[in-house]
Amino acid sequence: MTDTAASSPIATEPLAAAASDPNLLGWMQGSPPPPERQVRFDDGGMYTFPKLRWAYSNIRRLMPTTSVSRGNGPVSVLPRADRDDIDEVMFQPIGRTDSMSWAQSLDANYTDGIVVLHRGCIVHERYFGALAAHRQHIAWSVTKSFFGTIAASLVVEGRLDPQASVSTYVPELAASGIGNATLRQVLDMTTSLRYSEDYTDPEAEIWQHGRAGGILSRPADDAGPASFYEYLATLRQAGPHGLTFAYKTVNTDVLGWVLRRITGVSLSDLVHQRIWSQLGAEQDGDLMVDSTGTEFAGGGFNCCLRDLARFGEMVRNDGFYNGRRIVPTAALADIRGGADPAHFAHAGYVTLPGASYRDMWWVLHNEHGAYCARGIHGQGIYIDPKAEMVIARFASHHIAGNMGIDPTTLPGYHALAKHLMAG
Amino acid sequence: MTDTAASSPIATEPLAAAASDPNLLGWMQGSPPPPERQVRFDDGGMYTFPKLRWAYSNIRRLMPTTSVSRGNGPVSVLPRADRDDIDEVMFQPIGRTDSMSWAQSLDANYTDGIVVLHRGCIVHERYFGALAAHRQHIAWSVTKSFFGTIAASLVVEGRLDPQASVSTYVPELAASGIGNATLRQVLDMTTSLRYSEDYTDPEAEIWQHGRAGGILSRPADDAGPASFYEYLATLRQAGPHGLTFAYKTVNTDVLGWVLRRITGVSLSDLVHQRIWSQLGAEQDGDLMVDSTGTEFAGGGFNCCLRDLARFGEMVRNDGFYNGRRIVPTAALADIRGGADPAHFAHAGYVTLPGASYRDMWWVLHNEHGAYCARGIHGQGIYIDPKAEMVIARFASHHIAGNMGIDPTTLPGYHALAKHLMAG
Repeated sequence: MTDTAASSPIATEPLAAAASDPNLLGWMQGSPPPPERQVRFDDGGMYTFPKLRWAYSNIRRLMPTTSVSRGNGPVSVLPRADRDDIDEVMFQPIGRTDSMSWAQSLDANYTDGIVVLHRGCIVHERYFGALAAHRQHIAWSVTKSFFGTIAASLVVEGRLDPQASVSTYVPELAASGIGNATLRQVLDMTTSLRYSEDYTDPEAEIWQHGRAGGILSRPADDAGPASFYEYLATLRQAGPHGLTFAYKTVNTDVLGWVLRRITGVSLSDLVHQRIWSQLGAEQDGDLMVDSTGTEFAGGGFNCCLRDLARFGEMVRNDGFYNGRRIVPTAALADIRGGADPAHFAHAGYVTLPGASYRDMWWVLHNEHGAYCARGIHGQGIYIDPKAEMVIARFASHHIAGNMGIDPTTLPGYHALAKHLMAG
Repeated sequence: MTDTAASSPIATEPLAAAASDPNLLGWMQGSPPPPERQVRFDDGGMYTFPKLRWAYSNIRRLMPTTSVSRGNGPVSVLPRADRDDIDEVMFQPIGRTDSMSWAQSLDANYTDGIVVLHRGCIVHERYFGALAAHRQHIAWSVTKSFFGTIAASLVVEGRLDPQASVSTYVPELAASGIGNATLRQVLDMTTSLRYSEDYTDPEAEIWQHGRAGGILSRPADDAGPASFYEYLATLRQAGPHGLTFAYKTVNTDVLGWVLRRITGVSLSDLVHQRIWSQLGAEQDGDLMVDSTGTEFAGGGFNCCLRDLARFGEMVRNDGFYNGRRIVPTAALADIRGGADPAHFAHAGYVTLPGASYRDMWWVLHNEHGAYCARGIHGQGIYIDPKAEMVIARFASHHIAGNMGIDPTTLPGYHALAKHLMAG
């Protein structure tokens, strides 16, 4: 190691959670905020740490969105049974020999908000930084699990054939590399596509996908695809579909297109009709849209944390919530059962040994039968059926990936589950 | 008149209301909508007729917005006493010798929705085209009356000095042409500025204002101001302030800047705190924001029609609504009293003889003491104190101005007021 500032740990270590608090840093404070305190869409600053800690609680101020209406029914009751013994729950992070407390893990993971339900009651709820109970936060790839759940419902209802090919429903994709994949392969992400989601690689296809969909600023001279669906039509196949799991966001955007064709409604109306208005959500959700009005199925949903917890609790309860059946039990059994861990193992997720991916959910196949919805920078729903526990979490970690976040979340969730089971 | 198609009335007459219904024309229908059915921001299509009939009910899908939260209190009750005798109310449009029915006027004015309250009860409510009861519609310059009402409240509370100059509150505007204007001149739009709001003139300053604020698409090579406040700093004075009324949207954006400085909160939070959460609104509102997060005070508010009617009813009721005082009575007395009609007369509004403009409200000084909030393309709140009537209306008229709309609205409103007074 040299003595230069550039290689000094002090210069390169990202700010810790408390030091990167958006309120402390003053993002978007002032009338108007001075240039050095602005978080903007057009310069890409909103995706850089620590600005992203403000942006992820303010997506609709930065780009066009559509509303996922809660409707006008009553808000469903989320009973409270707050516990004061959770902060001290201890666990051993993956790959470390020391232990960490639950409270320490919230800082370590740049948590913006967390809600823990036990047997349907809130036992723990915390907000930090730019988030508040009534505010929406971007869910990123947790969005995928909403559309996977709706798709699994349509399979049970006989309206979606998992063995049919994508091009059966969306002829526009027949010539693309995903047109010949089955819906089952799309739902379980076993398609084989030339599409890199490595956020550290500036040449990765995810960037062109983002520019096409308006998630990233698109230069006026960009000759590439100009909408999500134009991008999907350019997808190229890499090898045979169906052999191994490979996480690629475009699968969910393809699924979204199929869902629109089957149901005839927009994706925002679909979530509104089938989930949001049924749950008794307390706030509307926001869904990112591209320049043609197409919603970002792969990651564009924003909602408040308690509503995310309500969704998780409905899934844990076999589809029953707010006094009504919302999702068929068989659809949730299919999710919980997972897929073939052998397909998953090839992907090399060191923090998820023995896991699988089914219907856009991550299934851990652990001793508690836990499964999760997971989003970049630490978003998540964690469902532990044996412990009757649901955790909903929003975060703005500086790492754009869960491999760096799992070590201090997953063992903590499991330790908390055992703690709650002990009474 | 020649026989060429270009000059034929058939070719140039805009589509009538029924023929321009957005559902009939299929705007944004399809998954995805084909290019010829898309309503877009980037090509300016959203502001062209008949596409604007879809766009004005879908603003947040087309550009960034922030939420004006209704909070989490109960929705206030809007009692119903529907009447079936309103469609047949007859009146004589300004400048015509024939008469028109209320029902005919809704078509003639490209009404998207209308709610009539009599003594606080809904007696008439209609929706057309892309609008529905629970959906937000752009209010355009009706937005101004929200901020004028808040400013009038702050005057009564002693927090805003109407005789102080703009630069007292916003030093950044000291060198601009509006820095030496008083807040009273800003509130009553008697500032004298080189700023044209003639929408038929492509060189009018309103276009640069809109590009700066992100209301219009801004080319990458646009070297002009890049935010609302950068634009305001370029304003030039035309003559002495305070002599005549001259309607210029920038006055309200300047007022918005002053309000942020006085209160220390964003304009969306200001409307949330002082009005929206107090009214018991049934839906959140949306407020357009520019690339620096600054809200469009001059015209960016979107809300549902019943909530707009609630606001009007609160104003009619001397500031009392939903079981509480919301705005000081003295502030509303100041609005109702109007300003000097002699200042107004110079502006030449042929459909508003004897009127004045006070605190961002249009005061008719007619036999019923009526006053209004007015927005381009036909948005409006019409308050008739003598008839105890409030009309809230959203529209998407092909004419970008009220002079072409007033002839078939104002006499209709007055006729309806007399009809309701008759019992």
